Amino acid sequence: MERAEIAIIGTGPAGISAAITAKARNKDIILLGSNNLSEKVSKAHEILNYPGFPEISGETLAFNLKKHLQHMEIAITEKKVTAVYAMDQYFGLQAGGDMVEAQTVILATGVVQDKTFPGENEFLGRGVSYCATCDAPFYKGKTVAVVGYDEESEREADYLAEVTGKVYYFPMYQREPEVTDAVEVVRQTPKEILGTLKAGTLRTDTEDWQVDGIFILRDAVSPGQLVPGLTIADRHVNVNAMMETDIPGLFACGDIVGRPYQYVKSAGQGNVAALSAVTYLSRLKQAQTKGKSSTNS
Amino acid sequence: MERAEIAIIGTGPAGISAAITAKARNKDIILLGSNNLSEKVSKAHEILNYPGFPEISGETLAFNLKKHLQHMEIAITEKKVTAVYAMDQYFGLQAGGDMVEAQTVILATGVVQDKTFPGENEFLGRGVSYCATCDAPFYKGKTVAVVGYDEESEREADYLAEVTGKVYYFPMYQREPEVTDAVEVVRQTPKEILGTLKAGTLRTDTEDWQVDGIFILRDAVSPGQLVPGLTIADRHVNVNAMMETDIPGLFACGDIVGRPYQYVKSAGQGNVAALSAVTYLSRLKQAQTKGKSSTNS
Repeated sequence: MERAEIAIIGTGPAGISAAITAKARNKDIILLGSNNLSEKVSKAHEILNYPGFPEISGETLAFNLKKHLQHMEIAITEKKVTAVYAMDQYFGLQAGGDMVEAQTVILATGVVQDKTFPGENEFLGRGVSYCATCDAPFYKGKTVAVVGYDEESEREADYLAEVTGKVYYFPMYQREPEVTDAVEVVRQTPKEILGTLKAGTLRTDTEDWQVDGIFILRDAVSPGQLVPGLTIADRHVNVNAMMETDIPGLFACGDIVGRPYQYVKSAGQGNVAALSAVTYLSRLKQAQTKGKSSTNS
Repeated sequence: MERAEIAIIGTGPAGISAAITAKARNKDIILLGSNNLSEKVSKAHEILNYPGFPEISGETLAFNLKKHLQHMEIAITEKKVTAVYAMDQYFGLQAGGDMVEAQTVILATGVVQDKTFPGENEFLGRGVSYCATCDAPFYKGKTVAVVGYDEESEREADYLAEVTGKVYYFPMYQREPEVTDAVEVVRQTPKEILGTLKAGTLRTDTEDWQVDGIFILRDAVSPGQLVPGLTIADRHVNVNAMMETDIPGLFACGDIVGRPYQYVKSAGQGNVAALSAVTYLSRLKQAQTKGKSSTNS
């Protein structure tokens, strides 16, 4: 199992900034997210107000951020984190099929722009899944629907087609999906998830699809689903000025904590979150040392 | 008198970021501060964690920030703001000998690292001044002490020597001051300001200096002195997540609002402060339009 002092989830400006500052402070970090960084950054046409880079394209800013990571020898672990559990002394992260243990966690996963589908929360874990890698094995030979939000979803649909019996792919974007022939693309708009004990139907604007499982592959999982027990207000995580959430050792920064959704604001908050995590770690260490010495005495 | 929709005080990363975002939003702005930007930035040896610029020198970061200002045609008005008064519908800024009127103000003046001298607050405006340009005329032919914190103070001491009778200059730094022969440099450490109705003595570690006026020329004026009525806690201005102070239309960002003192954190907050000011201006406009139409009806 991978272990780190600080796990940073998300590779947009907030997560990258947090990683850079944590690494500059000599912390043992793991940065989880997409190697393509945030789609919101790399696809931005032109960014006027990231100070120091006049009129930069999203692509060039992403390139510069990646160069900064490389310069500091920070690798991106390309795994999708689907759950963060706060244990007594550490956090357990479900990352793809693997578990990661970290003493502190920084959430920088962005904001979920789309609302959940009716039935989605109700059937989550009972026919509804956010993670193809984790749950594909449960659907061997069965029929699944994939609601895909980005290019990464297409790769997950391809993978599901290898493992399951039949895959229907519902792209939530205009562009033509590039999937293998084993995946059947359906151009309908998902509206609702229905079922009794388990999800069994994906209802679209025009049709009902009978399936055994429904994979909803958004760019970002909503923070309340990601971290059970976390206080959410209006789709955002509550933090104070030091980017502390109400769970000790858990920090959040960037779009996930609220508007404005701006690159440099996210980068600034990532910096603060990392320094708060560093402070938390040193207090944890002091408390442990104290605990040990009082046991010895 | 100069007028602006947004007056931004301070040319460190917070002020520059605020100016860039406000200008990108087509606001009429005035950016007040030093053309040399923040000394804290330009003199930084090496900055590791400003995302996008791996291992950049302070000088190069300052160059890039200035280039960004030039690219957006934002000029720096090189005046020291010594007071901000909240009026009914606007703010009045005392900037050098001039007044500036603005509908909103963003404070980005950094944090005052030094404590005030005993007697300083007591005699402010009665023999103690923060602004040579403003108050020199009151000391024609008289003797003044200048407590200088940076290169800019040296220019102000030179100017005071032209106007007043005698100038003693107390440098608060190691470097040899470059002042004209008319200025007498005294290598003693100021400790206290004494007087009865008016400040009359500057007490140092070794001697008492009888003077008619004392100019204290810090890089930054403490925010409580800058904006009468502003709530200060532990040398920092209280703000919420949107960088709003408790005075409507007045925003603050960067080191002035608290730790950590970090470049990218300041830049991020400047961005937020500017967007909050933009929102405030549009509400103000709506309220004014509404007020007018109800007067007409």
